[in-house]
Amino acid sequence: MEFSSKLLEKAVYEMSQLPGIGKRTALRLVLHLLRQPKTQTEHLVMALGTLRNEIKFCQNCHSISDVNICDICSNPNRVRDMICIVEDIRDVMAIESTGQYRGLYHVLGGKISPMDGIGPQNLNISSLIEKVKSGEVKELIFALSATMEGDTTNFYIYKQLEGVEIKTSTIARGIGVNDELEYADEITLGRSIVNRIPFENALKNS
Amino acid sequence: MEFSSKLLEKAVYEMSQLPGIGKRTALRLVLHLLRQPKTQTEHLVMALGTLRNEIKFCQNCHSISDVNICDICSNPNRVRDMICIVEDIRDVMAIESTGQYRGLYHVLGGKISPMDGIGPQNLNISSLIEKVKSGEVKELIFALSATMEGDTTNFYIYKQLEGVEIKTSTIARGIGVNDELEYADEITLGRSIVNRIPFENALKNS
Ligand SMILES: [Zn+2]
Ligand SMILES: [Zn+2]
Repeated sequence: MEFSSKLLEKAVYEMSQLPGIGKRTALRLVLHLLRQPKTQTEHLVMALGTLRNEIKFCQNCHSISDVNICDICSNPNRVRDMICIVEDIRDVMAIESTGQYRGLYHVLGGKISPMDGIGPQNLNISSLIEKVKSGEVKELIFALSATMEGDTTNFYIYKQLEGVEIKTSTIARGIGVNDELEYADEITLGRSIVNRIPFENALKNS
Repeated sequence: MEFSSKLLEKAVYEMSQLPGIGKRTALRLVLHLLRQPKTQTEHLVMALGTLRNEIKFCQNCHSISDVNICDICSNPNRVRDMICIVEDIRDVMAIESTGQYRGLYHVLGGKISPMDGIGPQNLNISSLIEKVKSGEVKELIFALSATMEGDTTNFYIYKQLEGVEIKTSTIARGIGVNDELEYADEITLGRSIVNRIPFENALKNS
């Protein structure tokens, strides 16, 4: 792409550094901003800059928060000795939106991924281990994605807790509630058979 | 979507104001920026802010330019009495990349679109008419997209030039050079038959 303006080229380049945004899309977005009133760009730039500079992470669960202890961790009605381990804040939002969980969270900030240079020391793992070893946690729920990285991370944490008496569980994998069996991938279908649950339990949940 | 942080919510909202970026994508992009070094957000914010504040349009062709007269308009090797009318700078970039055009451009900044509240007065049309009437232009090439809005805009400009002696042309519409006939839409195929060119010309171009 040949640009007639260095300013335009720079803006398109920076925009295209975002994941999933190619050069063409970046150009389309930047030209859109140029056609809109100046205030739209100002609001975008201000919001991103302020977030990046003032971002805080909850000192307890490491979720993104505007205050030192997030709303979930400071809510007296949450079950405090049950912790759900998730990768990032999107998972917290997804689980919260179900209304089915009343415990706390622990946000790792990613998964162990040697390919991407992410080791245990880059994640919020040591604070989790400490928390559990202090004895304040009764149940730990692993809710990482069912990928090789997710499994590696689960296993790493599990090993760190050897000798600690604590109930652990992982969220159920299986066929989506409204999904047809025939469209499910083999691995999901396989797991859902191996980890089948008593019929009476399924009746209770529906 | 329930956010645990007002700063995050605001950044996601502003990001999702961009065309084609939904709330979920916006959240993914913003979380990506939070995981990257601060400098990446700073560079993006700086590039967008600077572009929007310092953006200049070429005084001759209205293309985006860092200087008052763009590189194309100030290039002594370009054919100065041939003007190609395009919608925006992406069209200039696309035509330039073919290496097949040596004339100048005139960037309208959009198409006439009553639905979107865009009339002739919102586009760079009057300066084009003036330029043509001053007699410095010999050929005008219409290269707007072949949509109702494009046709309306072409026709509006054409009517404004009634009585002015000037050669006008539009870029050829037809089947793409490597496209199979059977996959072409009917209208394109129809036009390519109506506007067929002498076989000898096609031989010359290949
Ligand atoms: Zn928290
Ligand atoms: Zn120019």
